[in-house]
Amino acid sequence: MTRYFSEADSVETVNARMSPDADARLTEVMAALVKHLHAFVKEVTLTEAEWETAIAFLTRTGQMCSDTRQEFILLSDVLGLSMLVDAVNNRKPAGSTPSTVFGPFHVDGVPEREMGAEISLDGVGEPCLFEGRIVDLDGHPIEGALVDVWSDNADGFYDVQQPDVQPQHNNRGVFRTGADGRYWFTGIKPVSYPIPDDGPVGEMLGHLGRHPYRPAHMHFLVTAPGYDRLITHTFVAGDAYLESDAVFGVKAPLIVDFERCEPSQPGPLWRAKYDFVLPPRG
Amino acid sequence: MTRYFSEADSVETVNARMSPDADARLTEVMAALVKHLHAFVKEVTLTEAEWETAIAFLTRTGQMCSDTRQEFILLSDVLGLSMLVDAVNNRKPAGSTPSTVFGPFHVDGVPEREMGAEISLDGVGEPCLFEGRIVDLDGHPIEGALVDVWSDNADGFYDVQQPDVQPQHNNRGVFRTGADGRYWFTGIKPVSYPIPDDGPVGEMLGHLGRHPYRPAHMHFLVTAPGYDRLITHTFVAGDAYLESDAVFGVKAPLIVDFERCEPSQPGPLWRAKYDFVLPPRG
Repeated sequence: MTRYFSEADSVETVNARMSPDADARLTEVMAALVKHLHAFVKEVTLTEAEWETAIAFLTRTGQMCSDTRQEFILLSDVLGLSMLVDAVNNRKPAGSTPSTVFGPFHVDGVPEREMGAEISLDGVGEPCLFEGRIVDLDGHPIEGALVDVWSDNADGFYDVQQPDVQPQHNNRGVFRTGADGRYWFTGIKPVSYPIPDDGPVGEMLGHLGRHPYRPAHMHFLVTAPGYDRLITHTFVAGDAYLESDAVFGVKAPLIVDFERCEPSQPGPLWRAKYDFVLPPRG
Repeated sequence: MTRYFSEADSVETVNARMSPDADARLTEVMAALVKHLHAFVKEVTLTEAEWETAIAFLTRTGQMCSDTRQEFILLSDVLGLSMLVDAVNNRKPAGSTPSTVFGPFHVDGVPEREMGAEISLDGVGEPCLFEGRIVDLDGHPIEGALVDVWSDNADGFYDVQQPDVQPQHNNRGVFRTGADGRYWFTGIKPVSYPIPDDGPVGEMLGHLGRHPYRPAHMHFLVTAPGYDRLITHTFVAGDAYLESDAVFGVKAPLIVDFERCEPSQPGPLWRAKYDFVLPPRG
């Protein structure tokens, strides 16, 4: 049958073009994408001027990307898409520590350090002891878990954003648990910061009346043989942006009371205690 | 109410962040976009690897764009979005000539020529007389209509794609109708051609088992005071790609029999006669 394009049959017409020999999963994903994008255009009766604005926006977003800036990930983040992809791929059993967005600032190959080490290499910021256990759903310690952590510095920047300012691997570390499943290390109490907002995504947030801030958080990537990988943060209780995280990363169980110690006492000014619960793999 | 992100409430959580002071239309469009993109992710359970592929694809698409290449328009075209935006914005009264995609190759400021002029400046290709009338819904001629036309050359390229090869304004012209509403000019019989397929969009078409060809067509942009602007093509009947135009531009009423003349006769080898019917403005 000859099927020329019409508004009524637009989805079927476009999707009928895919070859039956194309990859089945690609075909499924593209057919759904076309269906939902066409429904969007029809629902709002997108004007030609709005379409031109969208083309220009996407073009600028692509052209803002570089080795150290991923504007399309920012776009995905602020539209809640990154959290949604995380959610549909990480439906965990009750009792597990929830996941949240990975973010663009993880670094592979950070050397493993001795448990308890200091990760603030520039010594700037309010020292904080992070401690707790990696446990299974029954509360039993997991031995040999790798705890990969990273945070911003006291100015709200990750080391990779300021390679000329911060020492390499500042506020990063990888630790391996022993038989007791415990981890502990000293970093700084993280601070809230804006996502990079000098590009098209920041401009869009401005037009929507949204701020670009993320509440203060420490990143954790926890892996252990036989358990699901956990990508998450702990958030600082009381942060002004907990309820308006620009990327929607906050979940209530991830908010941690950071305990302020007596400055006259020896040791770090802050303590943040948190246990991570990993379900078995699969 | 504090509303942290969850899979179930993802759309409401994201859309609740928009300020009530933001532009009402922008808010409407963005809320619908978020709703449909989230529905897409949920429907296909988009994997993290697929999300990464999408981020990389969009980034490459943006970085392929230049002054002479608009890869995001190509993407919109091959997904049927350009034709859909055209359709929802150009619902014309019965009897009107249908619109189709504008395409990226129109040029502003082409000088008006005397009716009947030759627009093939390089003299390559099979000469063709284009003729017909610009009329209203009652069939009455429209005087003073501007008929802006453009096509590819015999090799399937527009002049702007080959600024070092083709004369400026090759196969382009602007004509003004007289009291009889008639237009006529000589160009070449257009040829089918592939949309630029050496970028991410061409790669995607390949994965989907789709070819990149457009059937041969002549572009028309017709404007007249008091009438709706018409952006359309005429297509060459019999073209091999009429039923599989890579950008879905074909509509049955736009297909024209190109009449082959006796080569021994004087005048162009081909004749294509078509009347354009413009509805009153609005």
